[in-house]
Amino acid sequence: MSKKDLQTLKGFRDFLPGQALAREEVFKKIRAVFQKYGFLPLETPVLEYKEILSGKYGEESEKLMYQFKDRGERDVAMRYDLTVPLARVVAQYQNDLAMPFKRYQIAPVWRADNTQKGRYREFYQCDVDVIGSSSIIADAEVIAALAAALTELDLPEFIIRLNNRKLLDAILKNMGLAKGKIVEAIRAIDKLDKIGEEKVREDLALLGLGTEKRKELFEILNLGLEGADDIEKKLMDYEGAGELAQLVEILLDWGVKNFRIDLGLARGLDYYTGTIFEIILPDAPQYGSIAGGGRYDNLVGMFSGKPIPAVGGSIGVDRLLSALEELELIKYDLVSDVLVCNLEEDLEEEYLRVVKDLRDANIKVDFYYTPDKLDKQLKYANKKNINFVVIIGPDEAKNAEATVKNLNTGKQKKLKQKGLGLEIRKI
Amino acid sequence: MSKKDLQTLKGFRDFLPGQALAREEVFKKIRAVFQKYGFLPLETPVLEYKEILSGKYGEESEKLMYQFKDRGERDVAMRYDLTVPLARVVAQYQNDLAMPFKRYQIAPVWRADNTQKGRYREFYQCDVDVIGSSSIIADAEVIAALAAALTELDLPEFIIRLNNRKLLDAILKNMGLAKGKIVEAIRAIDKLDKIGEEKVREDLALLGLGTEKRKELFEILNLGLEGADDIEKKLMDYEGAGELAQLVEILLDWGVKNFRIDLGLARGLDYYTGTIFEIILPDAPQYGSIAGGGRYDNLVGMFSGKPIPAVGGSIGVDRLLSALEELELIKYDLVSDVLVCNLEEDLEEEYLRVVKDLRDANIKVDFYYTPDKLDKQLKYANKKNINFVVIIGPDEAKNAEATVKNLNTGKQKKLKQKGLGLEIRKI
Repeated sequence: MSKKDLQTLKGFRDFLPGQALAREEVFKKIRAVFQKYGFLPLETPVLEYKEILSGKYGEESEKLMYQFKDRGERDVAMRYDLTVPLARVVAQYQNDLAMPFKRYQIAPVWRADNTQKGRYREFYQCDVDVIGSSSIIADAEVIAALAAALTELDLPEFIIRLNNRKLLDAILKNMGLAKGKIVEAIRAIDKLDKIGEEKVREDLALLGLGTEKRKELFEILNLGLEGADDIEKKLMDYEGAGELAQLVEILLDWGVKNFRIDLGLARGLDYYTGTIFEIILPDAPQYGSIAGGGRYDNLVGMFSGKPIPAVGGSIGVDRLLSALEELELIKYDLVSDVLVCNLEEDLEEEYLRVVKDLRDANIKVDFYYTPDKLDKQLKYANKKNINFVVIIGPDEAKNAEATVKNLNTGKQKKLKQKGLGLEIRKI
Repeated sequence: MSKKDLQTLKGFRDFLPGQALAREEVFKKIRAVFQKYGFLPLETPVLEYKEILSGKYGEESEKLMYQFKDRGERDVAMRYDLTVPLARVVAQYQNDLAMPFKRYQIAPVWRADNTQKGRYREFYQCDVDVIGSSSIIADAEVIAALAAALTELDLPEFIIRLNNRKLLDAILKNMGLAKGKIVEAIRAIDKLDKIGEEKVREDLALLGLGTEKRKELFEILNLGLEGADDIEKKLMDYEGAGELAQLVEILLDWGVKNFRIDLGLARGLDYYTGTIFEIILPDAPQYGSIAGGGRYDNLVGMFSGKPIPAVGGSIGVDRLLSALEELELIKYDLVSDVLVCNLEEDLEEEYLRVVKDLRDANIKVDFYYTPDKLDKQLKYANKKNINFVVIIGPDEAKNAEATVKNLNTGKQKKLKQKGLGLEIRKI
């Protein structure tokens, strides 16, 4: 096979060790936070009966589904998102699951979409959902859990934009828009960030909203609402305002303060029915929203034959990782802590013992298997971005010592081999 | 969709929260150990060009590969194992990877095999490999890392069976078997555990090994070898004996003592070229080997056009998890630590504060969203196998106290709300 044939499919990626390690660390932190908030993992298969996934995502999306006939002539499809499988699980195991069912799932999905910068055909979704509760506390818990996860990743300042779909509906209805037009108006408003207020005003004009009404609408959408009291005072006549006020109060009770009430937030997806939110990095707006979600009370019941309330959110893992990388908040190349060098065949037993002692002290250790020139070994350590090298030549061996060199600072120091694990981090 | 259509494909599984959580914990521990041994993660795509995977696994296996044409009419296939993608990565990024390349990968693979007890079409592999070194220390490191991982899981006593394929070859050659027959003899010996010595002797007879030779052979295979010295003393004339002796010495240097030199260990796969090993649970032999591997110097070079030495091993995650489950070493249902009950609407703010305080103390907390009868909430806690419930009624609230009940022991105690997080674990 020639070199040029050695490749992954377009839109698919390898993650080499430095990058894969950074991803694992991010997922580990997110999982720990989700668990603290009472969410538990769920795993579902990569392949499902096509019938389970079909007709759930709309015609355009359906074309992007990886589907085929398996050896048993069954129509199967690769997981397109994590929500439809969740709905299947909720219906299939309804007697086994304690409700409300709070689950997270961090797993890849597949879409045969056009590839472009930052869009892949295999990518991770990181979802957290509460199924089976209408309580607004559930909405707050999803948002608080996502915010806590992002905080755990040492992200720079982020802002949670909050709104409520019922409230937005009510505002638009009050403008005199018919029901069918409201959905279109929401889609127009959803483009505010992308195309700006002027263009959105034009789109709304096409929907039949007069100049006066448009002015009135944007006065409301641009209200700088300060908190729960402000919402209730200025919007008390609208449905959904109470929910939004309640949400804000619970978030504050939980110490989540970095939100902004943003009546211009629409989130295009038609299935939202209440709370909607998006998380952005004000200092790095180029990444768009790095997390988002909302309440969707009419979706999870699709297999159960009865409506099941639900609220959830999702971290855009690929965007988040790009942001963390570009903001230099994760280093993709921090790997093993220590390389124990191998200089003399006669000292092999000594090296093996030092390797063991360091690992027993919970240090990540690489050992250079065959005796070689120190130069070459330092080059290897640098290529692997290893922090410390432990050098033991005949002189050090005689005194049961080791020379430890910090490859970042260049500093080096002779230490006793005994207790090396504890000392090495201090250098 | 009717209830009966709500199902996963045969050979595919959902892991509901209790089980999924146990799996995550196991993977987390294994990863941490592998990293301590200087291995780093690699992620490769689920789908590959079919050409990459084709012709690598033998004709029978190839039929079990999930393959199809994607929307762009490309022939693609789902990952069948983690070794061929590793070989692709090694060839594709040969200039970027520091050699030796030490990687682990814990990921699902797909095989359209007949399903039977304990065999699935979607299952995890958990591989650890050193690519690009012929050093026997690499062999020892793979084995030591796997042993350390299993130890971390609090497995009961396990035994590492050790052998060397060169040695076994040399022994069989010395019996007068021709090269072609040696492979067949190894396949016969591989069945020792399954069909017993008598049957294997019959198979060997069919390969032309006379009664005397068979007796002689089994005397060697059954040698109770005590250690490196013993190997060198009794087998010094055979190629591979030196390697095996060296391996044993390094393992002892690293504190790995629970091995047995077992010249009757064959491991059927033709591609092994040196060290071979298998890990078994003597007290639970029904699970067969829960880990295994060896040196395979002729495989990873398949895409590179030059031989690349390699040694690796793999934990049979499904078997391991079944064993852990049946031996009651993991509980599949230990989930959140605490449920904060919700009895009075008026106390909501107080509840929310307690929830926050407990989470701030790093406790996994579930909150019952809507006020309800205590009975119902205890039932929910039991169904979710939550350890503690925190009960705050008007009396407790008055004194800033909380009643904490341990649902396992039935014990309960009134505690101050302040500092609850620290106190709760002591009950």
